[in-house]
Amino acid sequence: MKIDNNIVKDSYPGSEKVYIDGTLFPIKVGMRRINLTDTVKIENGKRVVTPNDPVYVYDTSGDFTNPNVVVNINDGLHRLREKWIVERGDVEQLSDITSQYGRARRDNKELDSIRFQHSYKPYRALPGKPITQLYYARQGIITAEMEYVAIRENMMCQEKGIQSHITPEFVRDEIAAGRAIIPANINHPEAEPMIIGRNFLVKINTNIGNSSLSSGIAEEVEKAVWSCHWGGDTLMDLSTGNHIHETREWIIRNSPVPMGTVPIYQALEKVNGHIEDLTWEIYRDTLIEQCEQGVDYFTIHAGVLQAHAQLVKDRLTGIVSRGGSIMTKWCVVHNQESFLYTHFDEICQILAQYDVAVSLGDGMRPGSIHDANDAAQFLELDVLGELTLKAWQHNVQVIIEGPGHVPMHKIAENMSRQLKACHEAPFYTLGPLTTDIAPAYDHITSAIGAAQIAWQGTAMICYVTPKEHLGLPNQEDVRNGVVSYKIAAHAADLAKGHPGAYLRDDAMGKARYEFRWKDQFNLSLDPERALQYYKEGGEYDGNYCTMCGPNFCAMRLSQDVVKCCDKENNK
Amino acid sequence: MKIDNNIVKDSYPGSEKVYIDGTLFPIKVGMRRINLTDTVKIENGKRVVTPNDPVYVYDTSGDFTNPNVVVNINDGLHRLREKWIVERGDVEQLSDITSQYGRARRDNKELDSIRFQHSYKPYRALPGKPITQLYYARQGIITAEMEYVAIRENMMCQEKGIQSHITPEFVRDEIAAGRAIIPANINHPEAEPMIIGRNFLVKINTNIGNSSLSSGIAEEVEKAVWSCHWGGDTLMDLSTGNHIHETREWIIRNSPVPMGTVPIYQALEKVNGHIEDLTWEIYRDTLIEQCEQGVDYFTIHAGVLQAHAQLVKDRLTGIVSRGGSIMTKWCVVHNQESFLYTHFDEICQILAQYDVAVSLGDGMRPGSIHDANDAAQFLELDVLGELTLKAWQHNVQVIIEGPGHVPMHKIAENMSRQLKACHEAPFYTLGPLTTDIAPAYDHITSAIGAAQIAWQGTAMICYVTPKEHLGLPNQEDVRNGVVSYKIAAHAADLAKGHPGAYLRDDAMGKARYEFRWKDQFNLSLDPERALQYYKEGGEYDGNYCTMCGPNFCAMRLSQDVVKCCDKENNK
Repeated sequence: MKIDNNIVKDSYPGSEKVYIDGTLFPIKVGMRRINLTDTVKIENGKRVVTPNDPVYVYDTSGDFTNPNVVVNINDGLHRLREKWIVERGDVEQLSDITSQYGRARRDNKELDSIRFQHSYKPYRALPGKPITQLYYARQGIITAEMEYVAIRENMMCQEKGIQSHITPEFVRDEIAAGRAIIPANINHPEAEPMIIGRNFLVKINTNIGNSSLSSGIAEEVEKAVWSCHWGGDTLMDLSTGNHIHETREWIIRNSPVPMGTVPIYQALEKVNGHIEDLTWEIYRDTLIEQCEQGVDYFTIHAGVLQAHAQLVKDRLTGIVSRGGSIMTKWCVVHNQESFLYTHFDEICQILAQYDVAVSLGDGMRPGSIHDANDAAQFLELDVLGELTLKAWQHNVQVIIEGPGHVPMHKIAENMSRQLKACHEAPFYTLGPLTTDIAPAYDHITSAIGAAQIAWQGTAMICYVTPKEHLGLPNQEDVRNGVVSYKIAAHAADLAKGHPGAYLRDDAMGKARYEFRWKDQFNLSLDPERALQYYKEGGEYDGNYCTMCGPNFCAMRLSQDVVKCCDKENNK
Repeated sequence: MKIDNNIVKDSYPGSEKVYIDGTLFPIKVGMRRINLTDTVKIENGKRVVTPNDPVYVYDTSGDFTNPNVVVNINDGLHRLREKWIVERGDVEQLSDITSQYGRARRDNKELDSIRFQHSYKPYRALPGKPITQLYYARQGIITAEMEYVAIRENMMCQEKGIQSHITPEFVRDEIAAGRAIIPANINHPEAEPMIIGRNFLVKINTNIGNSSLSSGIAEEVEKAVWSCHWGGDTLMDLSTGNHIHETREWIIRNSPVPMGTVPIYQALEKVNGHIEDLTWEIYRDTLIEQCEQGVDYFTIHAGVLQAHAQLVKDRLTGIVSRGGSIMTKWCVVHNQESFLYTHFDEICQILAQYDVAVSLGDGMRPGSIHDANDAAQFLELDVLGELTLKAWQHNVQVIIEGPGHVPMHKIAENMSRQLKACHEAPFYTLGPLTTDIAPAYDHITSAIGAAQIAWQGTAMICYVTPKEHLGLPNQEDVRNGVVSYKIAAHAADLAKGHPGAYLRDDAMGKARYEFRWKDQFNLSLDPERALQYYKEGGEYDGNYCTMCGPNFCAMRLSQDVVKCCDKENNK
């Protein structure tokens, strides 16, 4: 199978890819530099030209915007971190895939036609060797990944000489404390390191993936590339349809950002959707299969306990987490405690061997304003706190998933409870949606909540697209979801006072005031759409737009005022 | 001129218009009742059908959704309040239009082709008779308008027997205290009374109007009707282009919601855009012209003082309020104090004669994150406080306009300062936009800010469309702006605990859990788009959507769990 390479996005208008060298490690951190046009003024009859500093922005697009590389989706991305990993000397390359299912898929000739053409032998920790970023951090070791994210988070400041608290040592310290993670499976060396923690830039996750009712592989790879282009920091493949294994391989090999999954989805497909047939053994093999493919973090609903099932009937909307509902039904049908909970130590042992992070799923997240902050939700949160400590014992990096549907006045309690119950492990929330009544606009209902909870300390917000509650998102929905969440994340960065976050806003303000339209578009989160809307006005030449017309442009008048005042003051 | 009547929107799917009788006055308050389908369950092999209560929602669409009325745009709406006004016995009907300009427009034969066909003789207070809702309230008089809004705000509760603090007496008391207004020009009897105050439902305003570069009359009327259909509570005609007088007449005669304007825009057009030629006399005639047409509230930038001009140069984006920049330039050019400030008493005397409310404009609102909460902004706010007291002396109802561009951590200060400086007069904010970097998505950057400031006490939020900063909104932009702001307002109502606000959310949650898809669409803020997105999935029959497919529908599994638990408990 070959995928049409046209899906690869071009660079951003007015932007250049730049690479910043590490000082501790021979690394090159890709950033995007938005070059601005000059400010031109007429002063005393003379044309005065002043250049404007470029603006550096965080870049999630990886090699897709590297002018020196031609990415071919059919070959996958450059394996950036492979050398770093191997040189640490604590991993081995296995001679074969460990997972039984993985081997069966590989050997199935019928799948040749849809298979990603290259295969890599998986890496795994040497016996008895801890290899996670959490382990290194606790040992006082700064890794290349840690320096990478320190440069990445700081770039805006460095060029402007702005003081920033973010150093490689600070990164190490935050990871050691469990307050931040770098999701970095040793089998996904294509991913550029990024950090999730509340003392760093707020990150956004995008969900893609097919269901049994839709989407092929090419379409999902396209959504993945598209998501990275618009600014998605991580990507979850939530496929529940056909060819989950093969779809995932294509996505991972082409993903410059960490990828997460919910392994129970695939485990359930392996038993043809019969929840009662799910077993620990099938789940375990699925974990190993995905660890060796390169999934960077797993959502595991290990906090959903048998006892919680009784709480569901008091709710208006029951359980709305797919993983949560699957596990609850399993517990009820088998009258047993969840195998995710009883086998949690073993799960951590597996994850630690590949440095896969665990994202403790909130199977009891509320699905309506009515159910927000109820007993089921907070009881589960306490269990997640207990599991956090257990994972940390195994040196497994942890993030905690959060709601859901929450009215604004109940958002703060979610954040404060999570910090306390889960020992400051990073919070990763879906929205929250601040009202239930706007399907088709839930990217907005939830961006309102996401901005607030991110300001209060949530480290990563999971996007919601306009299709939420209605169907699977298409490419345009992904774009709308990503940009809405970049807005929420950036609004939170500004409110939190992240060093240098305001530089892009200030550059935009200055460009507006000086009618440098091209710069306004290029500085936008979505330059293409901004330009398109401007052009719809039909007039795009002068010192005004169709919104106000020439006589009513406040900024133009405002400049007249300044000129008048200057003259007056110089008299 | 005839406008194609096809622009009139139909009713809402699944909804019925209902009218609630007043008890103090013979009034009928239009509401929308969303009728729901039955809940059907199979219990012990039997089909059990339980009806669901209808949901009553606030309805801004006026007679456009009255099944017993065929609205013809060319005739305008029914003059609902004319009788109430006349019967109070404190107004006179003038024999002719007072405004010189208004008479000239009327007598200009060339305008016949674009003129609204009916003309009404204007009403005005009898000499020495105060007629504003503020005056009545202070006298302890409950008006029909007050009972109307009390019923309107309460409808959701009444049917459900939920306790509400909102009574006609409470309405009167809030108006008397200046904490709320009912914008209700006696010359706009077509408008249904509504209230703006922080102890009531959060309201949204939409801006329409042409500029010299775009839009004809039919297009603007269409936007007005469209805005009311989607839920706009008030409407500002910000036209700055051709035929402002005639465009406004068409809009007012067809607007079931109060309409505001910024009279300085038209005054400036009268002097061909030459700010230096603006005079108090031209402005005064413009006020009277618009008072007699029926404008319900005027934005007046009377707080922009000559001294403020010097503060502009410290800003990144100068002045971004059109009215603010016009008045500042006028002050600078003439080296005089603003005539809006020096003539403010006379302005109030005029407004009081028609019960036009004043919306004190924030000419110094920040146009960028950088300029938020600066000296210019807050100095003006203090002047607005002073003017508030002056307006109240004349029994003129007052609201205060607010920013603009404000990062989240600076929003609360805006609200607390406004309450204090302006003696609790209702706050009416534009957004605020919480970042500058997302043109084409500013309905979202600003909905994030609007939801927060509304929660904190802003009474009305002014929508921002995706075209903000880029061009004039078209009809689809109006829809996106209105729905985004309905979301922000409703999220704030929920967070403030407005009585019964959650009923619609709960009905939605229940409909979701029971897979009553049709009810989900009908309960949506935008039923048409929700249905459209659902249909795009291609599957819309069963107990699931394309998002998760049949095996992964959490709600379906959740219902299985409840059934299992019930069986277990009954053993």
